[in-house]
Amino acid sequence: MLHGGDIYSVFEKDPGARENLVDFSANISPLGMPEPVRRAVIDGLDHALHYPDPQSRALKDGICRFFEETYGVTLSRGMIVCGNGAADVIYRLVLAKRPRRALLCAPTFAEYEEALKLSGTCLDFYRCPKASLEVEGDILDQIVSDIDMMFLCNPNNPTGLLTDPDLVGRIIEKTRTEGVFLVVDECFLDFCKAEQTHSVIPLLSQNKHILVLKSFTKMYGMAGIRLGYGLCRDDELICRMHQCGQAWPVSTAATDAGMAALKLTEHTGQVKDYVANEREYLFEALSRLNIHFLKSQVNYILFRMPGPADFYDQMAKRGFLVRRCANYHGLDETYYRMAVNKHKDNTGFINALQDIIREVSV
Amino acid sequence: MLHGGDIYSVFEKDPGARENLVDFSANISPLGMPEPVRRAVIDGLDHALHYPDPQSRALKDGICRFFEETYGVTLSRGMIVCGNGAADVIYRLVLAKRPRRALLCAPTFAEYEEALKLSGTCLDFYRCPKASLEVEGDILDQIVSDIDMMFLCNPNNPTGLLTDPDLVGRIIEKTRTEGVFLVVDECFLDFCKAEQTHSVIPLLSQNKHILVLKSFTKMYGMAGIRLGYGLCRDDELICRMHQCGQAWPVSTAATDAGMAALKLTEHTGQVKDYVANEREYLFEALSRLNIHFLKSQVNYILFRMPGPADFYDQMAKRGFLVRRCANYHGLDETYYRMAVNKHKDNTGFINALQDIIREVSV
Repeated sequence: MLHGGDIYSVFEKDPGARENLVDFSANISPLGMPEPVRRAVIDGLDHALHYPDPQSRALKDGICRFFEETYGVTLSRGMIVCGNGAADVIYRLVLAKRPRRALLCAPTFAEYEEALKLSGTCLDFYRCPKASLEVEGDILDQIVSDIDMMFLCNPNNPTGLLTDPDLVGRIIEKTRTEGVFLVVDECFLDFCKAEQTHSVIPLLSQNKHILVLKSFTKMYGMAGIRLGYGLCRDDELICRMHQCGQAWPVSTAATDAGMAALKLTEHTGQVKDYVANEREYLFEALSRLNIHFLKSQVNYILFRMPGPADFYDQMAKRGFLVRRCANYHGLDETYYRMAVNKHKDNTGFINALQDIIREVSV
Repeated sequence: MLHGGDIYSVFEKDPGARENLVDFSANISPLGMPEPVRRAVIDGLDHALHYPDPQSRALKDGICRFFEETYGVTLSRGMIVCGNGAADVIYRLVLAKRPRRALLCAPTFAEYEEALKLSGTCLDFYRCPKASLEVEGDILDQIVSDIDMMFLCNPNNPTGLLTDPDLVGRIIEKTRTEGVFLVVDECFLDFCKAEQTHSVIPLLSQNKHILVLKSFTKMYGMAGIRLGYGLCRDDELICRMHQCGQAWPVSTAATDAGMAALKLTEHTGQVKDYVANEREYLFEALSRLNIHFLKSQVNYILFRMPGPADFYDQMAKRGFLVRRCANYHGLDETYYRMAVNKHKDNTGFINALQDIIREVSV
């Protein structure tokens, strides 16, 4: 499966690219890894010769404190499963549940499908309307008792669009009455200004059939360190997920980084503000260039380039790695995704785009 | 599942233990994490905001170079699968192969059984003779065409005993003719003086039905960083194992640590020597105390303490965490495992043992 952020394939073909290439293909916070997170990893190396805690107890306590303080929501250790990135949590969930039939949106994050294929699950797709690429009300018709599991990525990847909160409420109701297990992937929700309006985490205590996916990777610039988690009130399921994979999924480095990250009270707000400003800049610039794009609410933007066909290579030649989106269900080779990056890089990206468009129209 | 090295459960009950407890329950190199490995992790934090290479290409190249230089064996990237610890590789293998029936030794490392249970595999056990706890020739009778996969841990965990190389040769032959896939876990073999005499890695090129498990965790004191790998000539299987789990199993920290570790030409020899000396010291001391133990060839020793029943707690009270072995098939609550640690700690351990024995006999 092709993912964003595979800078290594590029470096392998062209080792010189390491110095000159800016990665717009992965959706990492433009502010990078906060210094206290970096410091925590370094300080923690003294105990990295020990195995990590298989149950990630200290980290789970940190997550509970975080949601108590920020959301006013009370969680407990038994509601949390930590993994080697959110992707690890997805695989554990699928192995623990082994759904016979699952409903996915098209387009959406590819790793759900990869995990479900491994479990031999039959897949149904809700195809987002071509015009909006949003999840709309007609998805409810596909939530039927024959479906065992459904994934809702909110905001969705690669579109950056949020699903209307009323619709999310109706999805929760319908999945409950039809006996469908609902996975809500909120890995990018902490980049949204209206994060708490959209999160279903406050609803977990009344809805045992929901699991929320969260990640440290993007917001705290630690994709290389790997840390994600799942929240669910079904403690038997959480217990089974612990067993559905190796015993020590979370490294000591990830534990230390995660615990330091959870204590950063200002960081999320700073990233949100920075991303919102830069996104506005990019929206304006893309509009000016008559490029069709979706009004993302997060740190990446889906846009269309009907030509040139070698747009990806032309951008790479100019030092910018974009994400080709042809391998998403419901998209084609005219779709690309870009991260919202540092201002200097964003202006460089727009200049490169402008050059390419100018050359095509000559 | 109870594993060694779960110092966190102890700390949770008794936070003061953090300063006073020496961990003899996990089998980590007594020389700890080498400084160049530590340095590599710190230096690598600058690129930890990027996703790791899903294919671990640079690390695989390092592994190939390592075996070319040390073993004179030529491997290729296509023969290697890297994981978030060797345990991750075990789960991927089992999910990729989904064996109907598997053969395990009793006692042996518990994670094979945990992974196989997840896949619904029927388990056969070869019970090592009570007297020797070695894998002996009669294991061949249990290698029949009805078995799909067999695990041989060499040296075995928790016994520390090597299987006779002639017998290993016969096991390879018999598994091949009977169509049994053979997993040889050599995670602790690099602690043995006669490592290369015992390794089956040179035989991989002629035996597509063997996968060798290796780990960085123990030899390089990086259990918290998590890094292991599998070697097998069956490149289709390796490819499937990549797909049987999330896309980014190996963190950038583990990659950097592993690549630095592979360049340390002296380290393995130093650890081997240190462990051999301390093991001799411990053998003598245990003999002197009339404690029954197995003549381990690695960095841990299985021994028996028929009493007192609270031996584990008594050792913990004195500052030493041992591994209770009652949960291994074929062992009972009189068996314990200890790591070969630093000299100062080993003498402390022996003194504590002596105290307890003296108190019992008073």
